[in-house]
Amino acid sequence: MWMLSAEDLESIAIGAGILGAGGGGNPYLGKLRMRCLLEEGRYVSIILPEALPDDALVVTIGGIGAPTVGVEKLERGDEEVRALQALEAFLGRRADALISVEIGGGNSVAPLIAAAQVGLPVVDADGMGRAFPEIPMTSFFIYGVDPTPAVLCDEKGNVVLFPRAQDARTLERLARSVTIAMGCTATFAMAPMTGAQVKRTAVWHTLSLTKAIGDQVQAARRQGRDPVQSILELSDGQVIFRGKITDVARRTTGGFARGTATIAGVESYAGQEMVIEFQNENLIAQVRQRDQGTGAQQSDGEIRATVPDLICIVDDDTGEPITTELLRYGFRVTVLGIPCSDKLRTPEALAVVGPQAFGYPVEYHPLPKRKRGGIA
Amino acid sequence: MWMLSAEDLESIAIGAGILGAGGGGNPYLGKLRMRCLLEEGRYVSIILPEALPDDALVVTIGGIGAPTVGVEKLERGDEEVRALQALEAFLGRRADALISVEIGGGNSVAPLIAAAQVGLPVVDADGMGRAFPEIPMTSFFIYGVDPTPAVLCDEKGNVVLFPRAQDARTLERLARSVTIAMGCTATFAMAPMTGAQVKRTAVWHTLSLTKAIGDQVQAARRQGRDPVQSILELSDGQVIFRGKITDVARRTTGGFARGTATIAGVESYAGQEMVIEFQNENLIAQVRQRDQGTGAQQSDGEIRATVPDLICIVDDDTGEPITTELLRYGFRVTVLGIPCSDKLRTPEALAVVGPQAFGYPVEYHPLPKRKRGGIA
Repeated sequence: MWMLSAEDLESIAIGAGILGAGGGGNPYLGKLRMRCLLEEGRYVSIILPEALPDDALVVTIGGIGAPTVGVEKLERGDEEVRALQALEAFLGRRADALISVEIGGGNSVAPLIAAAQVGLPVVDADGMGRAFPEIPMTSFFIYGVDPTPAVLCDEKGNVVLFPRAQDARTLERLARSVTIAMGCTATFAMAPMTGAQVKRTAVWHTLSLTKAIGDQVQAARRQGRDPVQSILELSDGQVIFRGKITDVARRTTGGFARGTATIAGVESYAGQEMVIEFQNENLIAQVRQRDQGTGAQQSDGEIRATVPDLICIVDDDTGEPITTELLRYGFRVTVLGIPCSDKLRTPEALAVVGPQAFGYPVEYHPLPKRKRGGIA
Repeated sequence: MWMLSAEDLESIAIGAGILGAGGGGNPYLGKLRMRCLLEEGRYVSIILPEALPDDALVVTIGGIGAPTVGVEKLERGDEEVRALQALEAFLGRRADALISVEIGGGNSVAPLIAAAQVGLPVVDADGMGRAFPEIPMTSFFIYGVDPTPAVLCDEKGNVVLFPRAQDARTLERLARSVTIAMGCTATFAMAPMTGAQVKRTAVWHTLSLTKAIGDQVQAARRQGRDPVQSILELSDGQVIFRGKITDVARRTTGGFARGTATIAGVESYAGQEMVIEFQNENLIAQVRQRDQGTGAQQSDGEIRATVPDLICIVDDDTGEPITTELLRYGFRVTVLGIPCSDKLRTPEALAVVGPQAFGYPVEYHPLPKRKRGGIA
């Protein structure tokens, strides 16, 4: 168990941005809200999943919607707590701990914000070990946890409760509709589960991994070392491209930020370009010879990484992660490929989070795990 | 108090089709379901609103969605009961009686179906004295009843609960989104209210009015009298057009059946055509000189009736109401204008259900009430 400090928060925001693989929502606004809560004297304890009693009641808290909207539409501040309390009222029981559905992006911070306000601990684990765009794509639900009852809240005081859905995919469809009607972002509390279920289905120790990555990136910056190298060491990742962003096609549709980013290679990647397709998160990274003016030959592209492995775009100099809603022409970036959790590499997981589940007719070739560490 | 008979059911379906003003969903499928329940030996008692104890808990039950879908997508049969029970579970209290939000169309029968299954009485009143396309458009909510908590159920077992919405308009937006995600129709239980609230805000005695209209229409058919005349007598209505349907433009969009019907006049209306605009229900009836081939001059049209008064299209021979999803080229029809309830004619009601609330830049000119009777 450890107590969250303001320094931890900075580190977690950096690490969560990287593990967000471009999505999960930008953690910046959540970080500011959480910093205020710490300054008000509130605190959060982080507990290990192995320390959870089997019969503890654990609830997921987070944001749902389009990150492109999430960076502009401010929260009122009590959404997480209202969602949690509506779920507790429905269950007739108080939660014992909170947990992230996804450690990537803003949803790493959302349970901390609720926990600081109601005095609950947060479990050092999550349901993805990264970020994904849809509700069914968590290890909790892939391995049999019921996502309902679930609650959505907005900043205007509206509350919607989903007592029962036939499956996680149906809940995704219903909750996404409500999210769009709420203005394209909303806050959820869902999937009350037991400590035993968390231990069996969660990706472990990912909150401390984000903190460790962020600590190392900040230390590297202070000491003039390459921050990207620190990320690679802790995440067991590799550089898969380096270059300059030359095109971003992005639209907010169906409640998601979808599009492609094109990166012109530099250094050993000169003459090549990488095209990254994203739906909130980066999904597929493909390399092709650079277009010489008359239209790219995408069919010749070679796939360098796909979901569920993490494709992360970071600023070349600072190692700062660049989420998909912040991608801009001209950024000098390094693209990292990070092996995902083994919990996402089973056949039942790949049916939900593999490239084919996202509509790409390609096989998943796992990025190699070269050493201990990385995402559990 | 009276007990619903199979004969009553036939009459209510006819009368509700007429008071539906083209919408409310076709009562045919609901009538068949209710007939089965009566044949199984179940029964429903209809109680007068004035007999309700002030502290009784009364719940509205009905269907929401596009009637064009409702006539094709069958229910599983327990939707009404599941919606009611989910609402009761949330309230921690059983309902004492059920009531229609709208007496028009299928929603006249929906509370009867639930009541027969759980053994509750149904109040002889409703929240419109007709049908309207959206949740806020009921006298309950116009006069201050809170529409939440509300529940939506679908035929697949999915349940969505709305514990709180900032207003009826927001609930409409959220519930409509969920309805679309559920496949464009759903069943609701909403607006638990006291007997005192029902007495103050409901349109009274509309279930017995639909029964009386249906009784008279059937009697007229048997006796070779004009069924349309029977409708006019009981509803205090008038004929505003007669003719043949020459065009129907209809699309299912945003969860509604929207469009226009064009009717070429006959008899004293020869040389004229009536254009009726509808959104589930008929909203505006306008008469113009008949188009002689080169495009109609809609701006010259004279408005004969508008919401909230009822515009009803009935079959010329049988008096059978024709709902908007059943309008077809070639039908010989009579168009009736029926004065709405006085509860819909106040300034606060017209702000919600007047022609301007539907986007038409015209004043509401109430159809005259010529005698006692009609819609209370």
